[in-house]
Amino acid sequence: MKKEVVAGVDIGGTNTELGLVDRTGDVIVESTLNTTDYPKVENFVKALVKSIRELVKKDGDLKLVGVGIGAPNANYHKGTIELAPNLAWKGIVPLVSLMKEKIDVPVVMTNDAKAAAMGEMLFGGAKKMKDFIILTLGTGLGSGIVVNGQVVYGHTGFAGELGHTIIVPGGRDCGCGRHGCYETYGSASGLVRTVLYLLSEMKDPSPLRDIPPSALTAKKIAEAAIARDPVALEAMDYTAERLAFGIINAIGFSSPEAIFLFGGLAQAGEALFKPVRKYVEMGVQPIYKGTVKILPSSVPESNAAVLGSAALIWNELIK
Amino acid sequence: MKKEVVAGVDIGGTNTELGLVDRTGDVIVESTLNTTDYPKVENFVKALVKSIRELVKKDGDLKLVGVGIGAPNANYHKGTIELAPNLAWKGIVPLVSLMKEKIDVPVVMTNDAKAAAMGEMLFGGAKKMKDFIILTLGTGLGSGIVVNGQVVYGHTGFAGELGHTIIVPGGRDCGCGRHGCYETYGSASGLVRTVLYLLSEMKDPSPLRDIPPSALTAKKIAEAAIARDPVALEAMDYTAERLAFGIINAIGFSSPEAIFLFGGLAQAGEALFKPVRKYVEMGVQPIYKGTVKILPSSVPESNAAVLGSAALIWNELIK
Repeated sequence: MKKEVVAGVDIGGTNTELGLVDRTGDVIVESTLNTTDYPKVENFVKALVKSIRELVKKDGDLKLVGVGIGAPNANYHKGTIELAPNLAWKGIVPLVSLMKEKIDVPVVMTNDAKAAAMGEMLFGGAKKMKDFIILTLGTGLGSGIVVNGQVVYGHTGFAGELGHTIIVPGGRDCGCGRHGCYETYGSASGLVRTVLYLLSEMKDPSPLRDIPPSALTAKKIAEAAIARDPVALEAMDYTAERLAFGIINAIGFSSPEAIFLFGGLAQAGEALFKPVRKYVEMGVQPIYKGTVKILPSSVPESNAAVLGSAALIWNELIK
Repeated sequence: MKKEVVAGVDIGGTNTELGLVDRTGDVIVESTLNTTDYPKVENFVKALVKSIRELVKKDGDLKLVGVGIGAPNANYHKGTIELAPNLAWKGIVPLVSLMKEKIDVPVVMTNDAKAAAMGEMLFGGAKKMKDFIILTLGTGLGSGIVVNGQVVYGHTGFAGELGHTIIVPGGRDCGCGRHGCYETYGSASGLVRTVLYLLSEMKDPSPLRDIPPSALTAKKIAEAAIARDPVALEAMDYTAERLAFGIINAIGFSSPEAIFLFGGLAQAGEALFKPVRKYVEMGVQPIYKGTVKILPSSVPESNAAVLGSAALIWNELIK
């Protein structure tokens, strides 16, 4: 009997990663497309389906049973990508129905953070959890919320935009046109903004003064923090406090068993997790004290996006 | 054939209201106990079961099929009332199992705001909705959140404490020991606090200056606002803005189809709803613009608590 696999697809502005993934989360074979090679979505769909078929053929013992897609601004309910600023395909793109015209298996799509939540639930640290949240801390701050064993999509399909909940009224300018959004403080880019501000305020010597701001990354700041640089330590503490603030309010909403942190900023490790845990315990409502674990994602970052998309469709198939 | 009914029970610090409710939300017969007459919970349970049995007997054609209870600090998962400050029963009270020793039908319990959400879903304005939130705006601010057709209980059973999410870092003192909680601004008592502050800041004459602060209520302030009193208008506007702020962040979490407002402050009617709608539309993330209705609860306030508790158990029975 052939082994059943799904295709996990992660559509990014530059690259589209895909892989065939079995029920246990093994990525059997992988491939990449340049998203930018296909300014017309119809051609992209053709190329994607062709790539999936080629991967399946490579190993004669595989049977494709579904396709899961993670994409920016993806609407799970409608199977559409809507007004994605970083993709060439403008307007509302019915990607799932275009895929279904070419391939005869179930196809589902959501955004990368919700796919990451599914990945954590099927293949990562949330295997036995029914209520948890994953925060993806990169350029922006994405979130995937699981309530009662189900990803929260909401009425619109766009639930879970914690990165644009406001944590500092009248605070930092955000790309969304508003002020004080969570992601302007709690993301990897938020940490960089915090360092630049602190370099303007603090007089301490710091190796961070020798890095051009355009080359400053969360990784470099975390390394400086581990080396006890005072600016980096202060920035990490401030970021942890703000990150904890958003976590505290999220706990008041869905009372999760765990918050998983994923992505560039989360790679700072204990330099971040330790103060985040401290501020969450200090500030959380008394009723929730000691009830929430703050954990690193245990899905490997290298193929988390493909695994998340694969988990999304596996979850539909085993329902 | 006898008509199936459930008992809806609302336990308050002073009174316990109960009523028999049919599948369509008709309250067939009602009764009241003085909660304070029973400093021992075992005696309370005896009296409550006796009252329910008497109500059922009054009408020979009724068959009791379940009991739903709304109580402060109730844990849905465990069937317990935990550390409720306004009840005589201290510690963790296993109310549901005490009830089940005396009565041979299913018994479930949650807090009043979650019961209100169930009431709205089964008997009110949320009949066809799968994603909505109800905010109960009284002395405090309670919330019942429905995601995907299910009330959000969370890992602890205590999810949905939006009243204690922080909307103004370092803001007003809250009874929970923290600062800037949503309920210190968005509840009926929050409105009273806002008026007192504005009376200290504004020089305008106002009928509100003739009311002793201890007698000031949301209702009187709403009446003054309708009569165009500038202090009341400013207070209503400020409260609406803060209420909208919390709603905006809640929308970013679960993307509901509607937010229902219930309780003392909601009775201010359009004097409150109009500015709340304006501030929500102004401040919400662009992706959610025009997607959320802000509505008054359509469950009558007079027996909303009994109906909510009845809905809670009906929902379990028809699952």
